[in-house]
Amino acid sequence: METLRSYLSGSWYEASSGFEELVNPTTEEILARASAEGADLAHALHFARNRSGPALRAMTFAQRAEMLKGLAKAIHASREELLDLGVRNGGNTRSDAKFDVDGASSTLAAYADLGASLGDGRFLVDGDPIPMGRSSRLAGQHVLVPRRGVAVLINAFNFPAWGLAEKAACAWLAGVPVLVKPATPTALLTVRLVEKLLATNLLPEGALQLLVGAPGDLLCHLGPQDVVSFTGSSRTGTLIRTHPQLAARSVRVNVEADSLNASILGPDVEPGSEVYAAFLADIVRDVTQKAGQKCTAIRRIFVPIERLDSVREELVERLAAIRVGDPCRDTVQMGPVATAAQLRSVREGIRTLLASERVEIATGGPDRPSVLEGVEGDRGFFVAPTLLVARDAVAARPVHEHEVFGPCTTLMPYDGTAQQAASLVALGEGGLVASIATNDRDFARDLILELAPFHGRVYLNSEKSVGVAPGPGTVFPQLLHGGPGRAGGGEELGGLRGLTGYMQRVALQGFGPLIDAIAAGGKRGG
Amino acid sequence: METLRSYLSGSWYEASSGFEELVNPTTEEILARASAEGADLAHALHFARNRSGPALRAMTFAQRAEMLKGLAKAIHASREELLDLGVRNGGNTRSDAKFDVDGASSTLAAYADLGASLGDGRFLVDGDPIPMGRSSRLAGQHVLVPRRGVAVLINAFNFPAWGLAEKAACAWLAGVPVLVKPATPTALLTVRLVEKLLATNLLPEGALQLLVGAPGDLLCHLGPQDVVSFTGSSRTGTLIRTHPQLAARSVRVNVEADSLNASILGPDVEPGSEVYAAFLADIVRDVTQKAGQKCTAIRRIFVPIERLDSVREELVERLAAIRVGDPCRDTVQMGPVATAAQLRSVREGIRTLLASERVEIATGGPDRPSVLEGVEGDRGFFVAPTLLVARDAVAARPVHEHEVFGPCTTLMPYDGTAQQAASLVALGEGGLVASIATNDRDFARDLILELAPFHGRVYLNSEKSVGVAPGPGTVFPQLLHGGPGRAGGGEELGGLRGLTGYMQRVALQGFGPLIDAIAAGGKRGG
Repeated sequence: METLRSYLSGSWYEASSGFEELVNPTTEEILARASAEGADLAHALHFARNRSGPALRAMTFAQRAEMLKGLAKAIHASREELLDLGVRNGGNTRSDAKFDVDGASSTLAAYADLGASLGDGRFLVDGDPIPMGRSSRLAGQHVLVPRRGVAVLINAFNFPAWGLAEKAACAWLAGVPVLVKPATPTALLTVRLVEKLLATNLLPEGALQLLVGAPGDLLCHLGPQDVVSFTGSSRTGTLIRTHPQLAARSVRVNVEADSLNASILGPDVEPGSEVYAAFLADIVRDVTQKAGQKCTAIRRIFVPIERLDSVREELVERLAAIRVGDPCRDTVQMGPVATAAQLRSVREGIRTLLASERVEIATGGPDRPSVLEGVEGDRGFFVAPTLLVARDAVAARPVHEHEVFGPCTTLMPYDGTAQQAASLVALGEGGLVASIATNDRDFARDLILELAPFHGRVYLNSEKSVGVAPGPGTVFPQLLHGGPGRAGGGEELGGLRGLTGYMQRVALQGFGPLIDAIAAGGKRGG
Repeated sequence: METLRSYLSGSWYEASSGFEELVNPTTEEILARASAEGADLAHALHFARNRSGPALRAMTFAQRAEMLKGLAKAIHASREELLDLGVRNGGNTRSDAKFDVDGASSTLAAYADLGASLGDGRFLVDGDPIPMGRSSRLAGQHVLVPRRGVAVLINAFNFPAWGLAEKAACAWLAGVPVLVKPATPTALLTVRLVEKLLATNLLPEGALQLLVGAPGDLLCHLGPQDVVSFTGSSRTGTLIRTHPQLAARSVRVNVEADSLNASILGPDVEPGSEVYAAFLADIVRDVTQKAGQKCTAIRRIFVPIERLDSVREELVERLAAIRVGDPCRDTVQMGPVATAAQLRSVREGIRTLLASERVEIATGGPDRPSVLEGVEGDRGFFVAPTLLVARDAVAARPVHEHEVFGPCTTLMPYDGTAQQAASLVALGEGGLVASIATNDRDFARDLILELAPFHGRVYLNSEKSVGVAPGPGTVFPQLLHGGPGRAGGGEELGGLRGLTGYMQRVALQGFGPLIDAIAAGGKRGG
């Protein structure tokens, strides 16, 4: 059995106690063990701040971009090996694993392109020069400069590759070293990925550190120039945010947490139309892709009440036909959830939703699926693709409050007005993405503007874009990822916006031409 | 004695118990009493979210701007009455009170101008349309829309007028109602100001609510669309940030807290020069204006070691000549600190700094000044303008860690290099503003870029701008106010940037022309 090591302060660290085991969620075979017990984390942070921070900051945007490009290539070159780990350690189908691994390389590549366009600057210029007061001699100029600390990236189990890359791409292009702490159960892929990235020798020493296992006293050593970027549950997000050291020293914390993403069918969309088909396909993809373990997956479906039965029928037909089982098999369309704990949590979650008023199972449910392809006995953490129906959307409060992080979604009726749709979606108290299927411009406009304050992204599915759109569950590096309220209130990606989380905005104020000359060393983003 | 009332849910609320007294810090005469005990704060928040939020959002930027303009005029029309309250309740000289009251009206007026330039939009467009993927049919566009909650503005005692206005101007222009909770000891001015603003009838009902006294269970009723914007001590800032309700529900929190603002004299600046004179004048102003109770005041002065004695002499001469006493008198240049608690804290703070290695009093000190103009007996909360000298800047750690929020600053030597100056400033772990006096472009550039990550603003004082510059202690609405680390990590003002704290950024994604048509209803800031 492999013992996973951490990469800290320029060398690999192997613990001798405190191990957790990583298992194959299909076979329950133990794949590796991990622990960071005894690691000197204070020193690792110090090493990053003092060694790799200055090295990264000395590089121009173009040089950092060149580095990102090389890292993207390295991931692509090891694609097959990494996909295999996604299947074995994550319970991913090959397609799921591609979504993670190719997502990682394409996000790094996108930031490489963005960085190349910034050329030889080392900081960003934010907005135009500001004339101050009556004299033209005095001016102001905002700039964004890299923070002098470490970006601690704490990631969720569902995206061991992309989760690292989407955060690190922004931090590195901003000029900030990272220390990655992946979720232990699926850390095997992250470890291999880090090995590949380090082997390129493109990263300044200490710009990428890895902590595998429990984080120990890591947070206690963070200071005001550091950043914690966390993806995971609201509960852990709250613990991080209220950590005494982080709160007292204004450590910047970005949280991406639970989200009860909604999909709304417009009253104008006819069954059988292309938009209707895309609406259904997006739901089926989000229930099954990565066994529903995607923070952007559709958890709540709102359809005009007269469409409730037909949509239910269509979804049941499609979801019941999904082939669940060993993701090593080409014919299998959905694998298990990632861990035994996750299995328990998903089952309990489905039962919680079922316990609320007028909620019923349309297909699937909390019990182990009766048909599984290529699975022996009662092995593996399997859940069936599950559609629940809540006949009274308002009464079914748990549906708006509890995210079942697995292959489960709930269908509900609304009265066909943008106003009611928006008020039902808002019961979720903030999410990452909401999607609307409609060709009615007024309905689209009204609903988009009502949904906007509660989301980081609003996705419109209409006949004009139906062939080219990727569905709401795909996160693009160009667009913001994050959302208010339950979703944690964070912001990631969004092109250059993603860099600002790792930079300090500062107003320079003084003699105009001198301020201009200094700002000329930076680059205006766009 | 006046009983101060809160304005909540559309009417004035007077408590019957739980009173705190407000005193004149010069005479210790009791001026008023305040309490909000028994107020229904949950209802007040509900009232704002449901009544005034929709009304504000229905207004265009131009209409919100017109409202701000009218509010600015109302403050100006009541200027004399408000200045008098600043003198009586705040211990301000007339000039100090102007800084607060005129700061309030001019900030509202500046945001009125900004809003007018945005015209008839109701939300902001953020950046350019983003082509997505290979097809031109799919596009993304970021917009900023008003949050659907309440902005709870918790202010410090030192700026009862400006503190309200600078936060409320941004919230209102963004389209968000405010509930103001001023610091009780100086709330008399805020109450009168709120009365004047309400009397204009320009604000939608509930857009301005006032809570005078202890905040009770206010924070327990906040939700994910609300914002808390706090100015005050780091300790209270940490309490707010870690409040279980706020942390669990991702209530957005902006903190502006302690700051050990630094001023650095460049080695090129000759005694007797204009820049040298401005450097000294800025320090003297910051020690004495509002008795040093200004979050942007210079607390640490770094001069090349060969200038230590001459700068000390010059500052002692100027500070010792400051006429301290009853601020009602025209001849008095500095009044008392605002409260008995503040007096204790300032005295203790000076003693804390004096207890560190090689720190001595150059002028002033913790004891009551021996000469006070127009003050009877031992009345009033007076501190002398105080200059300390720390001969070893590194050894004097408390000087970099403890903000004495009163008329006190500490002079220290450095070796004349930008590098050492920057590393000494950084011991403060993040501040609101740092200022540099130099005509040397290379020194300026090097030091600005080194200081930038630790500050929200860097102010350059040079011969080209010396006649027109207002000093580092003045906050402009166009420029960012806030700072990392000890300063709380928040961002306020900065032109349109100040609105974003009260808005949600969201990416709209879909068929390009449709997204464009929706975004056309918003306004691009600039």
